[in-house]
Amino acid sequence: MERPYLLFLGDVADQLAAKTGQGIADWRPEWCVGQLRLPGCRADTGLADLTLDEAAAKGAKTLIVAVANSGGTMPEHWTEILTGALARGMDVASGLHTRLATIPGVGKAAAKHGRKLYDVRYTDRTFDTGKGHKRAGLRCLTVGTDCSVGKKYTALAITKEMERRGLKADFRATGQTGIFISERGVAIDAVISDFISGAAEWLTPGNDPDHWDIVEGQGSLFHAAFAGVTLGLLHGAQPDALVLCHEPTRKHMRGLPHAPIPELKDCFEPYLQMTSLTNPNCRFAGISIDTHLLPHRMAERLLKDTEDRFGLPCVDSLATGTGPIVDYLEKLCAN
Amino acid sequence: MERPYLLFLGDVADQLAAKTGQGIADWRPEWCVGQLRLPGCRADTGLADLTLDEAAAKGAKTLIVAVANSGGTMPEHWTEILTGALARGMDVASGLHTRLATIPGVGKAAAKHGRKLYDVRYTDRTFDTGKGHKRAGLRCLTVGTDCSVGKKYTALAITKEMERRGLKADFRATGQTGIFISERGVAIDAVISDFISGAAEWLTPGNDPDHWDIVEGQGSLFHAAFAGVTLGLLHGAQPDALVLCHEPTRKHMRGLPHAPIPELKDCFEPYLQMTSLTNPNCRFAGISIDTHLLPHRMAERLLKDTEDRFGLPCVDSLATGTGPIVDYLEKLCAN
Repeated sequence: MERPYLLFLGDVADQLAAKTGQGIADWRPEWCVGQLRLPGCRADTGLADLTLDEAAAKGAKTLIVAVANSGGTMPEHWTEILTGALARGMDVASGLHTRLATIPGVGKAAAKHGRKLYDVRYTDRTFDTGKGHKRAGLRCLTVGTDCSVGKKYTALAITKEMERRGLKADFRATGQTGIFISERGVAIDAVISDFISGAAEWLTPGNDPDHWDIVEGQGSLFHAAFAGVTLGLLHGAQPDALVLCHEPTRKHMRGLPHAPIPELKDCFEPYLQMTSLTNPNCRFAGISIDTHLLPHRMAERLLKDTEDRFGLPCVDSLATGTGPIVDYLEKLCAN
Repeated sequence: MERPYLLFLGDVADQLAAKTGQGIADWRPEWCVGQLRLPGCRADTGLADLTLDEAAAKGAKTLIVAVANSGGTMPEHWTEILTGALARGMDVASGLHTRLATIPGVGKAAAKHGRKLYDVRYTDRTFDTGKGHKRAGLRCLTVGTDCSVGKKYTALAITKEMERRGLKADFRATGQTGIFISERGVAIDAVISDFISGAAEWLTPGNDPDHWDIVEGQGSLFHAAFAGVTLGLLHGAQPDALVLCHEPTRKHMRGLPHAPIPELKDCFEPYLQMTSLTNPNCRFAGISIDTHLLPHRMAERLLKDTEDRFGLPCVDSLATGTGPIVDYLEKLCAN
């Protein structure tokens, strides 16, 4: 995909729905010229607001539909932004389930202007079914109390810290945003369900004994819509270590107002029990809490209390870094 | 799909790989004219062996590719049977992942002879993501120690017994064979993984308070390739009752020679724990053991011992019928 990017946020209802845009803006700001928001948009990546003309003038080469709504469909009234970008010489990329070429007018506009459409959630690759064979190398998977609680940021931050220390590590993207950021990976939630764990095995192949795959988790074992994806990824990734991610201000499971968030203490055992099928030696290596919505003192106390309570390193992957978790993983690796 | 059917078994390596054909032959024998097997085929549905010409002479209207291999792909050397059937005026139906029209020569032959191709594993329907809302009506899901252990037969037999008693019951097919038998359903393992539980919710909608959906299970929570599908179905079906299915002669998990079969006693708790997310009141209503490979006396003793050990009705759904399980479900329903 040609850079730089213009991040299109549509008119999404909250910041979480723009997590694709936020992720690209946070981890690859040098790849972006700005964001484009429609009236009523309640998300903001912090990048400059641009019109299509302004973005074109700044040299934007690709418009990224940078939202992540549940179900992954594209509202009809966003179409004119897509065709407008194509008319101004930009390619268009999306990570939604809706394929760009199937949106009325978009395929035709791309052909007319000789531009490319990228559906990063899809791959032409076919996967085998999972086999569950033990593979060489080490794997760490981030898992969550809920969806959208920092699994990707935590995995990216752990990878970055490992690279800083000169360890062998690869971030393994399993969702659209991670793929935009790392320019590779598999959108596990778009794989035909028979092949979830097979795709996860393909994504995390056998490697050097001291090499870490840091795998972005998906969904949550406690989310009624997505736990199947979570479990297939868990089995395919056969992690040696898990990091539990949590967002402490969340009132209910994402998109399910009737469903309570599980307590941290109730999450460890089900994850380990389910992981044991393909890796009975898996252990938790830490807890990652997204504290950005808490006052600073409260956040500090929460991290400290959680660490004491569970005897595991507890970090905010952005605010405090993932050093203590990587220390723990290095110890695991040495054993 | 036009009847009668000719069941094509190819040259599959064992009886289990022909379970689609066996299922149709066992439950809808009156819909079949016979079977067609290639040299080396190690499966047998018990129907008459026919050539394409003999089947055409007997009035076969549809050739069904009646196999269920892991991964669901079609060997190249089967193509000439498909095109041969089309040339003789038959439609062709398949439940494999490979879409018939994408097999070189098959799409063209269907067009040339004006015949139809049916890919029952696929649907044009799109599903919403799962919501986990409690729905009215009762649901019973069959689950397994492994894949291919009688989940579909048990669900069909329970439905038949309920219908015999005048209860309100619907069999809900979740795989290709069940769809061929009941002429409706959703192949859950072919759904995009983000929508597994949403598809299961669609399949088992709110209903009368005394109505039973008897849902065919898929895979096994203990199978490294397919547990994600199993869990998504479990969450979407939000069963009030589970029936554990088992095949006592199996040496290892289907297709995974390194993976042992779990013991019955270790299966109940993980299934109930995972089901509790969308139905905390779910209970086991029985055990269904496929004893057809055991000597008669050994089979009788196994059923009796298992019943005594776990305090649940234990049946062979074909040999002994599912009466005791339906008794148990009726009691559950009355409470």
